[in-house]
Amino acid sequence: MSYQETIQLNQVKVTSEFWQRYRDLVVKEVLPYQWQVMNDQANIDIADDPQNNGQDKNSHAIANLKIAAGRETGHHYGFPFQDTDVYKWLEAAAYSFSYHQDDNLKKITDELINLIADAQDEDGYLSTYFQIDEPERKFKRLQQSHELYTMGHYIEAGVAYYQATGNKKALQIAERMADCIDQNFGLKENQIHGYDGHPEVELALVRLFEVTQEQRYLDLAHYFLNQRGQNPEFFDEQIKSDGEERDLIAGMRDFTRRYYQAAEPIKDQQTADGHAVRVVYLCTGMAMVARHTDDQELLTACKRFWNDIVKRRMYITGNIGSTTTGEAFTYDYDLPNDTMYGETCASVGMSFFAKEMLKIEAKGEYGDVLEKELFNGALGGMSLDGKHFFYVNPLEADPAASKSNPGKSHILTHRADWFGCACCPANLARLITSVDQYIYTVHDNTILSHQFIANKANFSDGITVTQNNNFPWQGDINYHLENDNHKSFQFGIRIPQWSQDNLSVSVNGKQADVTIEDGFIYLTVNQANIDIELTLNMTTKLMRSSNRVKDNFGQIAVTRGPLVYAAEEADNEIPLWDYHVATEDDVTTYAYHADLLGGVGVIHLQATRERLDSADDALYQTLAEAPVKDKARLTLVPYYSWTNRSNGQMRVWLYR
Amino acid sequence: MSYQETIQLNQVKVTSEFWQRYRDLVVKEVLPYQWQVMNDQANIDIADDPQNNGQDKNSHAIANLKIAAGRETGHHYGFPFQDTDVYKWLEAAAYSFSYHQDDNLKKITDELINLIADAQDEDGYLSTYFQIDEPERKFKRLQQSHELYTMGHYIEAGVAYYQATGNKKALQIAERMADCIDQNFGLKENQIHGYDGHPEVELALVRLFEVTQEQRYLDLAHYFLNQRGQNPEFFDEQIKSDGEERDLIAGMRDFTRRYYQAAEPIKDQQTADGHAVRVVYLCTGMAMVARHTDDQELLTACKRFWNDIVKRRMYITGNIGSTTTGEAFTYDYDLPNDTMYGETCASVGMSFFAKEMLKIEAKGEYGDVLEKELFNGALGGMSLDGKHFFYVNPLEADPAASKSNPGKSHILTHRADWFGCACCPANLARLITSVDQYIYTVHDNTILSHQFIANKANFSDGITVTQNNNFPWQGDINYHLENDNHKSFQFGIRIPQWSQDNLSVSVNGKQADVTIEDGFIYLTVNQANIDIELTLNMTTKLMRSSNRVKDNFGQIAVTRGPLVYAAEEADNEIPLWDYHVATEDDVTTYAYHADLLGGVGVIHLQATRERLDSADDALYQTLAEAPVKDKARLTLVPYYSWTNRSNGQMRVWLYR
Repeated sequence: MSYQETIQLNQVKVTSEFWQRYRDLVVKEVLPYQWQVMNDQANIDIADDPQNNGQDKNSHAIANLKIAAGRETGHHYGFPFQDTDVYKWLEAAAYSFSYHQDDNLKKITDELINLIADAQDEDGYLSTYFQIDEPERKFKRLQQSHELYTMGHYIEAGVAYYQATGNKKALQIAERMADCIDQNFGLKENQIHGYDGHPEVELALVRLFEVTQEQRYLDLAHYFLNQRGQNPEFFDEQIKSDGEERDLIAGMRDFTRRYYQAAEPIKDQQTADGHAVRVVYLCTGMAMVARHTDDQELLTACKRFWNDIVKRRMYITGNIGSTTTGEAFTYDYDLPNDTMYGETCASVGMSFFAKEMLKIEAKGEYGDVLEKELFNGALGGMSLDGKHFFYVNPLEADPAASKSNPGKSHILTHRADWFGCACCPANLARLITSVDQYIYTVHDNTILSHQFIANKANFSDGITVTQNNNFPWQGDINYHLENDNHKSFQFGIRIPQWSQDNLSVSVNGKQADVTIEDGFIYLTVNQANIDIELTLNMTTKLMRSSNRVKDNFGQIAVTRGPLVYAAEEADNEIPLWDYHVATEDDVTTYAYHADLLGGVGVIHLQATRERLDSADDALYQTLAEAPVKDKARLTLVPYYSWTNRSNGQMRVWLYR
Repeated sequence: MSYQETIQLNQVKVTSEFWQRYRDLVVKEVLPYQWQVMNDQANIDIADDPQNNGQDKNSHAIANLKIAAGRETGHHYGFPFQDTDVYKWLEAAAYSFSYHQDDNLKKITDELINLIADAQDEDGYLSTYFQIDEPERKFKRLQQSHELYTMGHYIEAGVAYYQATGNKKALQIAERMADCIDQNFGLKENQIHGYDGHPEVELALVRLFEVTQEQRYLDLAHYFLNQRGQNPEFFDEQIKSDGEERDLIAGMRDFTRRYYQAAEPIKDQQTADGHAVRVVYLCTGMAMVARHTDDQELLTACKRFWNDIVKRRMYITGNIGSTTTGEAFTYDYDLPNDTMYGETCASVGMSFFAKEMLKIEAKGEYGDVLEKELFNGALGGMSLDGKHFFYVNPLEADPAASKSNPGKSHILTHRADWFGCACCPANLARLITSVDQYIYTVHDNTILSHQFIANKANFSDGITVTQNNNFPWQGDINYHLENDNHKSFQFGIRIPQWSQDNLSVSVNGKQADVTIEDGFIYLTVNQANIDIELTLNMTTKLMRSSNRVKDNFGQIAVTRGPLVYAAEEADNEIPLWDYHVATEDDVTTYAYHADLLGGVGVIHLQATRERLDSADDALYQTLAEAPVKDKARLTLVPYYSWTNRSNGQMRVWLYR
């Protein structure tokens, strides 16, 4: 593998106005709000949430830990993986310290570490559901228990918290968990020859390996990846011995082995099947282990999954998961817009996968997909006020359909306060607070700048990179590199696929002659100072999808830079399907509106609109009775910003 | 109400080649096959049937009756309404005697009447599930029990069998059932102030009234219609007292009151909501009672339901029911083609409704819809070999989607051998064997000829009507009326909506000057002989749907005469969405192929076809990279005949 950090990335300070607004929002609103929720102190309403699984308003997540720690009494409440809400929140908080020191929050999180330590069993085990209510069933029903998934999320949080604060206890908890898992799982006779129903612990173990250099943790992650699917009966055998009728989560037994990526060894799997979040968490772990172990078969499988997802199963916004049944992938080119899933967590997980693939290969496509997720698929999961969230992210929505067609009832047309299964809000929060970690990747002595998120970054050898821009609204990207030690290195800049048709780069004021290699341009740097000006092509583009995709046939989507745009009822007369957009040149205008939706670029698109047939007309008529078409103009806003004003129709794909 | 039969319709002998083939098929294949199935002697496979509800290959329907009759021992098997398979089959057989005397079949059906009589309780009750396994729960959980639905189906069969054969026992069983129901239900103190969860008995009781003239039966039907929804708590109260956890059919308790048309009095209901078959059975009963009682409020409700269904909730093929969840209507203009339901039974029931509305009003629209069902929505439910059936009738199908997108798994792309819930096959069989009853309606001294099904009909007063045609393939309709008694009457002929733009009628060889009144033309007849030649406009038409329907936007459907056409994989390269059909004049050609699909007219339609994007291409690209369009030709066959050759893609709506 090529990944070696000859140059070390020390710190990145995000200066992007766009991202800093979100990052401040997480500090100011999201973290306090979620902390309240987890402590059952928020006044939330999850009644209209199809994922609530009959839960009431309480999260009980902190209470579960307190009970497990012996500080309170009572029963566990919520899903078996309820603990993970806390861990993802903790991880998000840890990252926030890199740009917002907050003694009050730090006090809370330090105390939380103590609580978690108290809740942890002697042997390192921690899953409050089993500790409180069914200790005899530990590791006995891994298809549904989420025990390793839960501990994996703590391990991630513990590593992040240790890195952010130096809190050793946080790391020790993680190590004890990993040791517990290492003790219980493996190919030895007295060990469980299995794995968790929900991949996650693999990537977490590698993160722990990366900070501790403890080879056992990497080996354990590698074991889980190799073992997965080797015995397709594993879960069934466990269920048989645990008792058929003792499901931990209703309905989970009915999902196929492919849902769990457990039907065959993952190196043999040809397509990205099953629960989308499971797939991308698994792929992230695979990429990490492949990089550290040079397991070429695993890398081949990574690339195969990547291609299947990106070339055949991904929405233009980066969202993934075409069906609500199992929150899952379906089949190649099946991308319905109005019955889809597109879970926020899946876009977060896809960002992890892309980030890890960038460490393996300097390939612009990974950066393109990461950008797609950051600016669209993942970001749309949170409202502009930081207090409302999407679990499901549709590309087409209609309140009437959500209300009255049961096949679309999972599509909310407004973000919810919270979810019974609250995996998404904190997952997105941790992505936003750690977005500084998604801007650069270093290969040997090449610095890859793959995201246009304005920042100031310090590298080893006295290198600093200052990236200024007003992205995603403007395409002028300026870099100022300081290299006092005159170190010689390569500086690679990703040229997004959407800008490769019109590239302009100047170095120290002079037009540079550059070629794009696998999505990047490279400049050799050895002088003390260098200024790079890159002008990305920010023209509005009308995009079509492959005609292998049934559901987008005859339609276009509008993009500008990294942003996918959407028409919504707040700006346009409904129904939104009733427009034919013009597709010639110069049919769009663009303007930035500082006072709209936290500041957004708005696109106007020429169109004609059919006069609606009268409700008294026959439902079917000959083409002779064609409706009159009036000139019309569609107003589009960035997809991530939809339904922040009113609860109405929305469409990304528009008829030509 | 206007309906009075001054002239009586005595007998109609169907001579239509198209329909005679189906009617013979029912005699030769369907009835023997279904008899075998119900006696558990057929080698059927319902494994791939999403409606099988975990049932195995056996129907057990006859065995249930034998056990209830004390001739065998054992438990009931199947749905609580399993008996209705037998009754609908018996009704179909009864009608078949009108054109096919069959001593062997008659022996079987006479014996079946004896069996049913033996199975009936002293008090007239008959529902084998409750008799065999839960006698203490009779009428205790009407939301789910289907007891009146079941007895209603027998009443229909008993009346039909009595009318066909003169078997009085058959009628007596029906009368005893009705008496039992009359005893148990009503507003008296000791009666149940409720109704069945599945409307059906209302229409059956009116049929029994029509043959017996027993006013109690009409009153009882009227009671059920008035009572429905008066106490929206009725089902819940019964369930509470019967025991919450004792569901007869899993999941039925979760459906809303609107699913059962029990949320409010039916005269107050504004839209056709809930289970589609329930709605149209209910409407049929409403129309029948309204006609006999002159209940104008009920008639107004009938027309409101009719309009909501026909103008806002019906597929172009006549199919109804937009969602698989509850086999139900959704909301106005919601007509998805690939996730829809369109149950065969719902089209059969809609035919009943149309037939009854024709008795109330001489309005061509009722005949138009009846024709739509007979030639498309209902007829598509059976294969050309008479041995395979559709429960769900999609307007768009793709085996890959049915296999791999759970939201489409209910869409079979080939007709099944049988169903666990086998309501549809025999329902369609009884429609086909009684199609002679769907051709004429008499109002006072007006004979309305509303279906172009060739026949010879005898009326009272010595009137005979001979209708010759080669419909639906040709539009020349010839009538020869004999009127030896020189009776003066009106002869009304429905001019289908699809032919009103080009009308040609001649009487005794001379062009007649006629005007269309509410879809009919009328000729005054008083001479002994009259020849009428009507030429219907059989040009191929490209139809669009109201632009209020999202799912058909930008698409056309092809019709010719009464038939809706479909493109299927057997004739066309897939994917079928990948064509842009031409919409100018003269883009279609038509030819009849006697050797194809039992003889069908085939339409060729000019189109262009996009060359499929390469699987290696990016999933999304700019419009600049437009795919090449090649000239192409789509081959279309009648919708009813699809998937009789191979199991592949099918589309009714095609992109322009």
